[in-house]
Amino acid sequence: MAGGKEAHGWAARDVSGHLSPYHFSRRVQRDDDVTIKVLFCGLCHTDLHVIKNEFGNAKYPVVPGHEIVGVVTDVGSGVTSFKPGDTVGVGYFVDSCRSCDSCSKGYESYCPQLVETSNGVSLDDDDGGATTKGGFSDALVVHQRYVVRVPASLPPAGAAPLLCAGVTVFSPMVQYGLNAPGKHLGVVGLGGLGHLAVPFGKAFGMKVTVISTSLGKRDEALGRLGADAFLVSRDPEQMRAAAGTLDGVIDTVSADHPVVPLLDLLKPMGQMVVVGLPTKPLQVPAFSLVAGGKRVAGSAGGGVGECQAMLDFAGEHGITADVEVVGMDYVNTAIQRLERNDVRYRFVVDVAGSKIGG
Amino acid sequence: MAGGKEAHGWAARDVSGHLSPYHFSRRVQRDDDVTIKVLFCGLCHTDLHVIKNEFGNAKYPVVPGHEIVGVVTDVGSGVTSFKPGDTVGVGYFVDSCRSCDSCSKGYESYCPQLVETSNGVSLDDDDGGATTKGGFSDALVVHQRYVVRVPASLPPAGAAPLLCAGVTVFSPMVQYGLNAPGKHLGVVGLGGLGHLAVPFGKAFGMKVTVISTSLGKRDEALGRLGADAFLVSRDPEQMRAAAGTLDGVIDTVSADHPVVPLLDLLKPMGQMVVVGLPTKPLQVPAFSLVAGGKRVAGSAGGGVGECQAMLDFAGEHGITADVEVVGMDYVNTAIQRLERNDVRYRFVVDVAGSKIGG
Repeated sequence: MAGGKEAHGWAARDVSGHLSPYHFSRRVQRDDDVTIKVLFCGLCHTDLHVIKNEFGNAKYPVVPGHEIVGVVTDVGSGVTSFKPGDTVGVGYFVDSCRSCDSCSKGYESYCPQLVETSNGVSLDDDDGGATTKGGFSDALVVHQRYVVRVPASLPPAGAAPLLCAGVTVFSPMVQYGLNAPGKHLGVVGLGGLGHLAVPFGKAFGMKVTVISTSLGKRDEALGRLGADAFLVSRDPEQMRAAAGTLDGVIDTVSADHPVVPLLDLLKPMGQMVVVGLPTKPLQVPAFSLVAGGKRVAGSAGGGVGECQAMLDFAGEHGITADVEVVGMDYVNTAIQRLERNDVRYRFVVDVAGSKIGG
Repeated sequence: MAGGKEAHGWAARDVSGHLSPYHFSRRVQRDDDVTIKVLFCGLCHTDLHVIKNEFGNAKYPVVPGHEIVGVVTDVGSGVTSFKPGDTVGVGYFVDSCRSCDSCSKGYESYCPQLVETSNGVSLDDDDGGATTKGGFSDALVVHQRYVVRVPASLPPAGAAPLLCAGVTVFSPMVQYGLNAPGKHLGVVGLGGLGHLAVPFGKAFGMKVTVISTSLGKRDEALGRLGADAFLVSRDPEQMRAAAGTLDGVIDTVSADHPVVPLLDLLKPMGQMVVVGLPTKPLQVPAFSLVAGGKRVAGSAGGGVGECQAMLDFAGEHGITADVEVVGMDYVNTAIQRLERNDVRYRFVVDVAGSKIGG
């Protein structure tokens, strides 16, 4: 890594997860690389898990951040699709094997050798084993295959969370046909993921019902976010009345919760997609699946092509995340607030506008 | 029902589930009806549940049987596809609403108004509420829409279990693309369902691995049934070595069992299909689904068109069930033996060859 570009970021040094300034260097730009000045970077729940070593794989110091929007400052000689000045995005991975089934089909997020943008392990010969540093830093150097174009119509701060949260809900909607006018989609949980699934569902021409544990988010769901209906999951009568009405459900909730009431909402052959990560196993009675030919799938992020398609679609339909933009010096507070879900709906750090090191 | 065809069958009168001779009458043949002399009828686990009222819906007397092969003896004036002398089959339903989404798409088994062949409730105006009587009887009268053709190449006794067990495994294989040469299918459990999934998988050109709790069925799986590999699910080392190798799994087991080891066998984006009915909820960690974009679906039987396609395919490839053919006077013993899985792999009653009443 010697001789690479000097970078300034914020890193967690231990399981406290507390971030503080950190200097390091980016790799020397290669022929296929794009060098990016980071403008904005979203704060995702996964960042919290990683910096506190809750997945047991933290390689401190950890520079988090994988919802990155920036501007290209330099490109290698082999880069044809990007040029300095372009607004681009980088999601939660920056490399993969490029040859497995998943990579070949454009579903890189399932590559067994996926290199996460933050806390990942480089596959490259010349820096093999190096730990990747994420978007809470002033600059990135990324192979062009893992860079996407951010439409000019999207404000970069509001676009940043699309790079992870956005594609996480968009990808399964497309894969499972939950993107067709006239269908009826249920969105469980209205947080960083759910509040994006709603406008995507509406832009696809579907009826969208938000399912939440309480009435607290009803007005926002039906009002500004544009959902068609709202169900309180703890109200058995409401849930019963809606049984068998949904073509699909995107379940974004990471708190433990029963899934049978959600399966009951599905029409025959309906599809539920789990994108949250409850800690206890889902309790799925075989009968709830078998009787109606119902389906439960998990989905993690999305491929590079899916991410580009999502951004293009978001650009056409003016879909961005609801963000609270904060400076880097606020990030530890933001982390604490995110832990208690005290944000509507995503923190985004104004990296370029923050004094982050030097 | 007055004036209908006199029928002789065997019925359960109470929760003992003991079958004994029973006289009743079939409805008068209508314009769209096919009258069928029953030749053979398979004994399915579902029959056991119903006759003992384990589903809580037994309407005694219950004449079980829904894996029926017979010969047409008469047809109504509106029947064009069948004529006396044809060998035909009837599966586990004899009517449905014919207008819902599921019926319209050929997935009648998910019709909310499905009329089971045995212990079902008629939808017809003139006998509304009448309880249907199954194939453990000498004759049936069925609307032509729910009758399928049995290829001449199939022996009728071995074909009978195809009408339920066969289509139960065939339908999800086709729906989930587990019917493509070069793919790798896992079949969990080698019983009435599993022993049919193996030859279907091979006939589709796939590699087929049987997964069983013990080595007991290894020779039969790899030998006569033609599976390519055999895994003992209780051997963690074997299971680990096979992790990530299967495109799909058909899980036929109705005993409670862990599903995580089966999900681990799947490739990224692999599909597990549950066709058994364990009593305890499946324990499905969200992470096991999300990390690899994996899927779990339930599947119940199949539509009429799927059943016909399955029979045609079975006819082309010479696929039949392994059956132990018994007389009706043996049926109570057969029920006891089926309860302890003491059959390889399906009992079929020789209805036409039995003295069953009169």
